[in-house]
Amino acid sequence: MKKQIKQKIMSAVANDLEQIESHLNSNLDPYLELVQTIAGHILFSGGKRLRPLLMILCARMCGYDREDIFHFSTMFEYLHVATLLHDDVIDAAEMRRGKKAAHLVFGAAETVLTGDYLLAKSLSIAGETGKMEIIQLAARITSEMAQGELLQMKNQRNPHLTQGDYFKIVNSKTAVLIQAACESGAILAGASQDIIGSVSNYGKNMGIAFQIADDILDYTAQTHILGKNAGADLREGKLTLPVIYTLQKASEQECAFIKELIQDVHFSHSAFEKLIDIMEKVGSISFCLEKAKSYSEKARESLMHIPEASEHSVLFDIADFVVARDS
Amino acid sequence: MKKQIKQKIMSAVANDLEQIESHLNSNLDPYLELVQTIAGHILFSGGKRLRPLLMILCARMCGYDREDIFHFSTMFEYLHVATLLHDDVIDAAEMRRGKKAAHLVFGAAETVLTGDYLLAKSLSIAGETGKMEIIQLAARITSEMAQGELLQMKNQRNPHLTQGDYFKIVNSKTAVLIQAACESGAILAGASQDIIGSVSNYGKNMGIAFQIADDILDYTAQTHILGKNAGADLREGKLTLPVIYTLQKASEQECAFIKELIQDVHFSHSAFEKLIDIMEKVGSISFCLEKAKSYSEKARESLMHIPEASEHSVLFDIADFVVARDS
Repeated sequence: MKKQIKQKIMSAVANDLEQIESHLNSNLDPYLELVQTIAGHILFSGGKRLRPLLMILCARMCGYDREDIFHFSTMFEYLHVATLLHDDVIDAAEMRRGKKAAHLVFGAAETVLTGDYLLAKSLSIAGETGKMEIIQLAARITSEMAQGELLQMKNQRNPHLTQGDYFKIVNSKTAVLIQAACESGAILAGASQDIIGSVSNYGKNMGIAFQIADDILDYTAQTHILGKNAGADLREGKLTLPVIYTLQKASEQECAFIKELIQDVHFSHSAFEKLIDIMEKVGSISFCLEKAKSYSEKARESLMHIPEASEHSVLFDIADFVVARDS
Repeated sequence: MKKQIKQKIMSAVANDLEQIESHLNSNLDPYLELVQTIAGHILFSGGKRLRPLLMILCARMCGYDREDIFHFSTMFEYLHVATLLHDDVIDAAEMRRGKKAAHLVFGAAETVLTGDYLLAKSLSIAGETGKMEIIQLAARITSEMAQGELLQMKNQRNPHLTQGDYFKIVNSKTAVLIQAACESGAILAGASQDIIGSVSNYGKNMGIAFQIADDILDYTAQTHILGKNAGADLREGKLTLPVIYTLQKASEQECAFIKELIQDVHFSHSAFEKLIDIMEKVGSISFCLEKAKSYSEKARESLMHIPEASEHSVLFDIADFVVARDS
């Protein structure tokens, strides 16, 4: 199922993805080779380019037909990678996109500074659009993402984290960037406030669906598919929806076990398996999937408010893809 | 001498400084209290506000008379503090502005993210000016400062660092920001390209003079004046002009001693004193002071190309102040 949707999307956007790759590469012009190396380490290790792609599709859907969209769209991948670099240092993550995390290869300081470079690059490209709303949007989400990450850190290994807290973190950490990529496309195209609002809603709901699906994967996928270790979130003390829901539904004894696990940096594989069993018993993964699907559905609905264009179909498919299960 | 110039400057800009303080405080509106606390830790611990002050003075010198200049000027203090926060993490510094460095109080991750928040804040205010040149300038120097810091890191404990390398680092790390503060003031005022160029030159040369003077202080001042430990640069492996010049002029035996010192993270107080003796013998401090003065002089000369205004006098004084010796 997931594979088929992917193939359909890929054939629709193959040319766009090629253009994005080429612009990501040529836009990078640091005077230090080291920056190029560190940025390239993560930038060119198989990212999905979801954010630039969404900007391009949304711009085109709203009538924008200039080629400079490919250049502008890179700002959202640079910004995304900048936050990944900083997050890796912060989480002391070991792997990212299937590679050893940058800070372990190049050093934490070098990684922080390359993140700063990419952040600046992203805001510089925002400036090139000449649209003040896009510049302000880029600055605002950069600030919001930093605060979202801090909020998550503050709640590290906090077993009392609520679903409300979780959605607040997901919104700040992930959704605002995807939302901004979509919204910027519409702004660039000079769309009406109504249309911009609908495009923005599509992005926001897609972003939330995307993050929930990603958080589910951390409990269901194998390391080689994930590109990082399964259970990595929990090991880092990040409580996501699958665990939060399980804590709400599990027995007292099970909760005690999970709370212990949360505090244990080096939990065993068998302890992790036991957690998965409890999750299945309380139906946590199905619950989370349903949640993700409901956000994906909201994203689809938002598109209904936008005049029909050929991009609708692939944007629908992307919303489906995000929550489709491997099969 | 230095004290008198300071008093003269302070009485000329007392009102401006008050306005800067008030805007620095009220512009800060994170949704997380933690960000306010971490940012405030360094933001309100006695910085000189040199960068916002220069933007205000340069704008006014070029005919800008709107009150929003105080708001806009904060972008350069936020950007400065953002880089200080990241630098502290990177250098693993112990003290800053007379306080324990933020990462030791709040944690490295929290400090990096608060730096990101301030960086975004700064670029957001740049956007509010509505001047695309200022936005691009802010983005460009952010990228350049990150690369300057990386260049310095790459050359940590490198005894072969040349004066050329040093000036390249000083330019990227320090001068571009002071230059941009001055230049932005002129741009905001709608000055001609010629005038903007002269204001920019003033800032650049002032910035270099300022950094050389700061690097000298690390070898001449007492800890309580410096707000950080004397000899801290060398301990962190940062080779600055006083050491680079000394290595060029000292005897073979002395150079061998200095090179050993450079590699020694925990050198003794008496070893540091011996280095100071060699510096005095080869006249390194006088050489550096002369260098700083020559840049300060270039800054003064740049002002000559700008139509006479009441701000000239205090801008001259600031150029003098930067290189004046305590006495």
